[in-house]
Amino acid sequence: MNNNFLNILGSKPSSYTPLWLMRQAGRYLPEYRETRAKAGSFLNLCKNPDLATEVTLQPIRRFNLDASIMFSDILVVPEAMGMNLHFIEGEGPKFDNPIKGQADILNLKPINPIHDLAYVMQTIKNLKQELPKNIPLIGFSGSPWTLACYMLEGGASKNYEKIKGFLYQSPDILHLLLNKIAIAVADYLIEQIKSGVDCIMLFDSWGGILSETAFKEFSLKYLDLIINKIRSSGYTDIPIISFTKGGGNWIEYISQLNCNAIGVDWTINLAKARMKTDKVLQGNLDPVILSVTDRETITKEVRKILNDYYISNNGSFDNLIFNLGHGILPSAKPDNVAALIDIVHNHTMR
Amino acid sequence: MNNNFLNILGSKPSSYTPLWLMRQAGRYLPEYRETRAKAGSFLNLCKNPDLATEVTLQPIRRFNLDASIMFSDILVVPEAMGMNLHFIEGEGPKFDNPIKGQADILNLKPINPIHDLAYVMQTIKNLKQELPKNIPLIGFSGSPWTLACYMLEGGASKNYEKIKGFLYQSPDILHLLLNKIAIAVADYLIEQIKSGVDCIMLFDSWGGILSETAFKEFSLKYLDLIINKIRSSGYTDIPIISFTKGGGNWIEYISQLNCNAIGVDWTINLAKARMKTDKVLQGNLDPVILSVTDRETITKEVRKILNDYYISNNGSFDNLIFNLGHGILPSAKPDNVAALIDIVHNHTMR
Repeated sequence: MNNNFLNILGSKPSSYTPLWLMRQAGRYLPEYRETRAKAGSFLNLCKNPDLATEVTLQPIRRFNLDASIMFSDILVVPEAMGMNLHFIEGEGPKFDNPIKGQADILNLKPINPIHDLAYVMQTIKNLKQELPKNIPLIGFSGSPWTLACYMLEGGASKNYEKIKGFLYQSPDILHLLLNKIAIAVADYLIEQIKSGVDCIMLFDSWGGILSETAFKEFSLKYLDLIINKIRSSGYTDIPIISFTKGGGNWIEYISQLNCNAIGVDWTINLAKARMKTDKVLQGNLDPVILSVTDRETITKEVRKILNDYYISNNGSFDNLIFNLGHGILPSAKPDNVAALIDIVHNHTMR
Repeated sequence: MNNNFLNILGSKPSSYTPLWLMRQAGRYLPEYRETRAKAGSFLNLCKNPDLATEVTLQPIRRFNLDASIMFSDILVVPEAMGMNLHFIEGEGPKFDNPIKGQADILNLKPINPIHDLAYVMQTIKNLKQELPKNIPLIGFSGSPWTLACYMLEGGASKNYEKIKGFLYQSPDILHLLLNKIAIAVADYLIEQIKSGVDCIMLFDSWGGILSETAFKEFSLKYLDLIINKIRSSGYTDIPIISFTKGGGNWIEYISQLNCNAIGVDWTINLAKARMKTDKVLQGNLDPVILSVTDRETITKEVRKILNDYYISNNGSFDNLIFNLGHGILPSAKPDNVAALIDIVHNHTMR
C-alpha cells in the first residue's frame, strides 16, 4: 500500500506529514451520534460489526485522513475476561464487580480472541473490504496498566487509591493481574493482525499517574512484553505505536520498546521529544484547539509545532505523524478538523 | 531562627533533610474535621482567624514537622476581587458568576490586602505568636494561571475549554486578566510578608495542562512578574518556592525564576530534576502512599527517592526539602505521617 502514514512508519519517503486523529470516529460528528443512537448503547455499537464499521468509515468519508482506526473500546478486553461492563451516559465506563484481590484475578478467564472478540475481528474484516485501498487500518488495545486501573478502581478514579494500594503494598498480586492482561492483550492484537490491521497502537492512557520507577515496573514492562510477544509470533514488520499520556518525561525509556513510533501528548515540546528518541514521533496538538478556535488560530498553532519539530529534526519533517495530544473532544468542530488536515498537509508538502 | 527548612533555603548547613506536607492541615486529621464542623463551612474556616490558626497548629502539635503553612485557600484572592465563592461538599469550589469576557475582567476590584484579606493577615499574626519559636511559617498564593482557570471555568474543569478558548483565540483578554490577578497576588504576598510569614510558596496547580509554549507565556511569565514585584519591593531575601504540578518537563524554565526552590510532583525523578536546576528541590512522594501503605513500604519508597537524589546531588542530601508530590489526601493515615517524618529525618541525619 502506497500510503504516507505507513511510509513514515517504514522509513520510506513520504510526500507530506501524514495525519490521523485519536478518537476520530466520535461524538463530534453528527453522523456518529446518529449511528450511536441507532445502536442503543455505546457497548452495542462496539459489538455490532456493521455499525462499528460504519462509524469507522464516517471520518474517512468526510476528511482527507491518512489512516483509519477501527472503532472499538479498550475495555472490551476485560469484558471478554469475564468482567461486567457498563457505559453510563456522562459518567463513563463502570465495572459492576471490580477486582478485589487475588481470587478475582485467578477467576478471570483466559481469552480466545477469535471467539470471545469475534465482533472486533468481523469489524476489521469488513473494514478491509470497505476502506479505500490506500487507507491503512489501525488496530489497538489499552495497555495492561491502563486496563488494570479500570478493573481495580471499577471506573474513572481521582487518586487511584485501589490500584496504588496493590502497587505499593502487594506488588506481586498486581503483577499477576498485569501479566494475565498482557497475555490477553498480546493474543488479541495478534488476532487483529491476522484479521488484517496494518498497524497496532497501544494506549497507555494512565501511565502518567505513576512515578518513574513505578512506570517502568508496572506499565512499560508490560508494553514490552506485549510487543515482544507480537514480534516473536512472526510479526516483525507490523508497525507499532506506543502512546503514554503524561509520558513526556520518560521518552528515553519508552524508546527502548521494540515499537516504531511514540505518541506524545501536547505538554511536551516535539523538539525536546526528538532529542530523546530516533523513533517516529506522533502528536501533539492540544485537542481543545479544535473545539474553541478557527482556521487562523489552528494555522498558527500547527506551524509552531511543525517548525519546532523541523528545526530539531535537522531541517526535515521526516519521522513525524501528526495527531492530537489526546482524543478529539465531542465539542470539536468538523470544519476545524478539515482545516487542520489541510494545514498539516500543505505546510509539510515535500 | 535556626531551623533546617530555612537553612536549606538559605544554603546554610542543615542537620537533616527538612520536611513538611502540602495541605498538612487537613481532613486526614480528626481534630481538623472537628474544627471544620465547628466553622460550619470551609470558607468560614478560612475567614475565621482563630479557627484558621487552630487548624494550622494541629499538625505542628502532632508531628515533628519542620515548617508550618498558614491555613487558607487559594481562591480567597478572586473572592476579594469581587467573585462569589462557594465550596460545595464533595464538588469543590464554585464561582456563581464565572468571568465571561473583558467587561467582567474590568469589573474585578483591585484589592487592598490589608483590608480585603484582613482575616488572613490576622491568622498570620496569631500564628507568629503561637507557633513554637523554631517553626517557620509559610505563606502562599495560587498562581495567576491557576486562579484564572477557576475564575473562567467557574470550578474544577475536565478540558478547560473556556480558559483555553481565551488562550488560543483572545490571548490579549486573558493577559489582561492574568496581569490583574498577578498584581493582586503580588500585593497579597507582600502583605503576608509584612504580617510575618517566613517563606512564600506559589501553587501553580494547573500549569501542567498547558503546552510548553503556552506554559511560558501564560503561567511562568506571571510567576516571574509576582516574584520580581516581591523582590523589587525590598524583599530580596524572603525564600520563595514555586510549584507547578505536572511541570517536570519545564524545570529548566522554572529554574529561571528568581525563586529559591522548585516544588516537583511524584512523576519526575528527583535525580533528573537535579540535572536541570541548581536550586533547592522540594518533593516528591506520591501522596497516595500515606493512604494505602504502612511504615515498611514508606521506608522503601522514601529510600528510593532519597538515594536517587543523593547520587545525583554528588553524594549529599543538601538542597532538598522533602514533601509530597501533591497535597496529602483525606484518606492519609496520621500514623503514616509520623512514620514518614521519622524515616526522612533518620535517613538523612548528617
